[in-house]
Amino acid sequence: MAKLAPPRGMRDFPPAEMARRKEVVAKVESVFASFGYAPFDTPALESIELLRAKCGSDVEKQIFETGKLGLRFDLTVPLARFVASNPSLPKPFKRYAIGPVWRREEPQKGRFREFLQADIDIAGGARVECDAELLACSDAALRGLGFREFEILVNNRKVLDEIAGKIGIENVSQVFRSVDKLQKIGEEGVIGEMMGKGIEEKKAKNLLEAISFEGKNEKILEMLEKNYACEGVEELKRLLELCGAYGMGNVKIKLSLARGLDYYTGPVFEIYAGGGVGSIGGGGRYDRMIDELGGVPTPMTGISLGIERIMELIGGEKAEARPSVFVACVKSEFYPYAISVARELRNSGVTTQTDLMGRNLRKQFEYANSLGISFVAVVGEKEKKGGKLNLRDMASGKESLVSVAEAVKKINNAGGQS
Amino acid sequence: MAKLAPPRGMRDFPPAEMARRKEVVAKVESVFASFGYAPFDTPALESIELLRAKCGSDVEKQIFETGKLGLRFDLTVPLARFVASNPSLPKPFKRYAIGPVWRREEPQKGRFREFLQADIDIAGGARVECDAELLACSDAALRGLGFREFEILVNNRKVLDEIAGKIGIENVSQVFRSVDKLQKIGEEGVIGEMMGKGIEEKKAKNLLEAISFEGKNEKILEMLEKNYACEGVEELKRLLELCGAYGMGNVKIKLSLARGLDYYTGPVFEIYAGGGVGSIGGGGRYDRMIDELGGVPTPMTGISLGIERIMELIGGEKAEARPSVFVACVKSEFYPYAISVARELRNSGVTTQTDLMGRNLRKQFEYANSLGISFVAVVGEKEKKGGKLNLRDMASGKESLVSVAEAVKKINNAGGQS
Repeated sequence: MAKLAPPRGMRDFPPAEMARRKEVVAKVESVFASFGYAPFDTPALESIELLRAKCGSDVEKQIFETGKLGLRFDLTVPLARFVASNPSLPKPFKRYAIGPVWRREEPQKGRFREFLQADIDIAGGARVECDAELLACSDAALRGLGFREFEILVNNRKVLDEIAGKIGIENVSQVFRSVDKLQKIGEEGVIGEMMGKGIEEKKAKNLLEAISFEGKNEKILEMLEKNYACEGVEELKRLLELCGAYGMGNVKIKLSLARGLDYYTGPVFEIYAGGGVGSIGGGGRYDRMIDELGGVPTPMTGISLGIERIMELIGGEKAEARPSVFVACVKSEFYPYAISVARELRNSGVTTQTDLMGRNLRKQFEYANSLGISFVAVVGEKEKKGGKLNLRDMASGKESLVSVAEAVKKINNAGGQS
Repeated sequence: MAKLAPPRGMRDFPPAEMARRKEVVAKVESVFASFGYAPFDTPALESIELLRAKCGSDVEKQIFETGKLGLRFDLTVPLARFVASNPSLPKPFKRYAIGPVWRREEPQKGRFREFLQADIDIAGGARVECDAELLACSDAALRGLGFREFEILVNNRKVLDEIAGKIGIENVSQVFRSVDKLQKIGEEGVIGEMMGKGIEEKKAKNLLEAISFEGKNEKILEMLEKNYACEGVEELKRLLELCGAYGMGNVKIKLSLARGLDYYTGPVFEIYAGGGVGSIGGGGRYDRMIDELGGVPTPMTGISLGIERIMELIGGEKAEARPSVFVACVKSEFYPYAISVARELRNSGVTTQTDLMGRNLRKQFEYANSLGISFVAVVGEKEKKGGKLNLRDMASGKESLVSVAEAVKKINNAGGQS
């Protein structure tokens, strides 16, 4: 006999949990769409060659492989493949994608082998206006979900390049991968890693010191303009101005933010909402990827919201169930009448169930209760003759003999809907 | 460089196509929910052991394997695993699932290696009332999608067992797998296959003759009651009565309908809507699966709608786009004002885009046109001073200087929405 649990690090989503997930996804999706991002989906599987080329060595061993294919580990690489192979798309091409990705890393609390990402990306827009819109849209999505206290950290790879260059460090992308682990392995750890990559201790320390500079955005920008003036600093400044125009007061420069992946080329971002769950979103500009895939060079920028962590922070609130009806039969001979009543109710937009089990009335009520159904409509001889139903409000216990039309009115009023 | 096409037999879904898919899925989902089916999801991957145990030999070689896991080839087996491992679920447990499944079979026109199924299943209900509800719900979903001319073919495995038994055929499940290929390989082919399984030619011919009996439902039932009276005939009769109570006139007994999979035990169904695409839905009762998985014996029945074939029949109609706005800047210095206008519009529920490219006005209009956007709101010096925008209806060409609130009204009126 086969094991009956879902595979390790993967989950079943029973109805109550699934209803919450659908609610969160629908909210995020509606905000993405309100900014004009269009839905776009790709297969779960991609060529293993493509996945390996773009994942960086840390992720490579995490791919679920099947023959010459592998399960996607993010939604960015599939998009890049599509953009590279469709050079005539009107630009900017703004797409959203909400779907599962798979990583074979060791499961732990809050880290799964199958998890949901919600991404927006812009293909073909080189300006910081694009990056700012990604942040504004993410901000709106999180606010739509009820988040109030969260911080969007921003940095720019060009600024990091400039700082590293001034200090005399060459192997910049290796360095960023180490810097990105600062919170995880500490200063000593990062310096050790960098030295392992052939960087002198003094330079490593200088770099860490430079990117540890903290303070208000204005103060950081002033320091950067004085010591590391470059295109990246101008972009950072403009990004913050635009975020201001969007009314966002929660965007904060963090010079030690590097993002582990090799492919970033400009602005990078991460979103934190506390709660000990790490970042709930992250992304950045990756202007060279399409070119590297053999496509017409196309600037790209994107951000990904982590639905699992977001759901962990939102917590276990039950999804708001719409009012619904269970049509209960006094005797099974009235089942055909129950069916016709149910049909009319559904046609009026009311979620309706009937008794599939031939149960007695008490058991039908028990079942309706176990599902949290808000109304039970009893039908028997009298109801059938009069073309009515005996509607019981399960919350108040009130009963009334009504027509289907009257029932629909009562049910919708209970849900605050018209 | 990696190949840039999606993997063979799999597809990218650009926005227009994706919007149609989402529309179809949303309609099906809303009908499923209106019958009280609850959303329930499982991982894309399952243990290969479980998949192999339940797939039947034809499907086994079609599984995408990765280590000890495999991509699910249907949504039924994952549900059965869940039901088997959660014996205390309130019964009947009615769930819907709409998601991709994967089969490594050779791709051909209309047959993909990744495709979408939309399933409803009932766990814990042994009565034909359950099977009838599945058919009524599928019927409502298809009508919701605009289908009018379609036939629901029904049969019952117990009836086939009875017929085969009377004829003296023993290896019944092998026989069904051959019978199921009748349309594909013809009578000669089926007889040949059966003989290959050790069945005498005469018996094979007798079986084929018996199940070729056609006519109105009443006539078939009469024949069955006379020659093959059994529980299956009673179930078939009751199923048709209940479908009548649901107002369905399109349910038709088809004795040669067997369904290939081994696991069916009672009613089986297939839905046809012509158009040369084969069945657009199918399913049946599989009362022994939970037991076989080591769970508490639990009757199960389910039906699956094939979204790909349904979409092929619905054809290329464009999804109804909601009205949307592009806020165009006369000069880029007004971009912050454009952002604030866009924000207000979005807060009023209007899908709104701004110019991310710093393009001139003509190019902004061209871009808005290429996306099929219904209104362009131009903002410049005059508009900013007055806190207004110059709204152009792209269909009529009419322009008016309006406030955001007035703009929202005009835009929503254009979409027939309030």
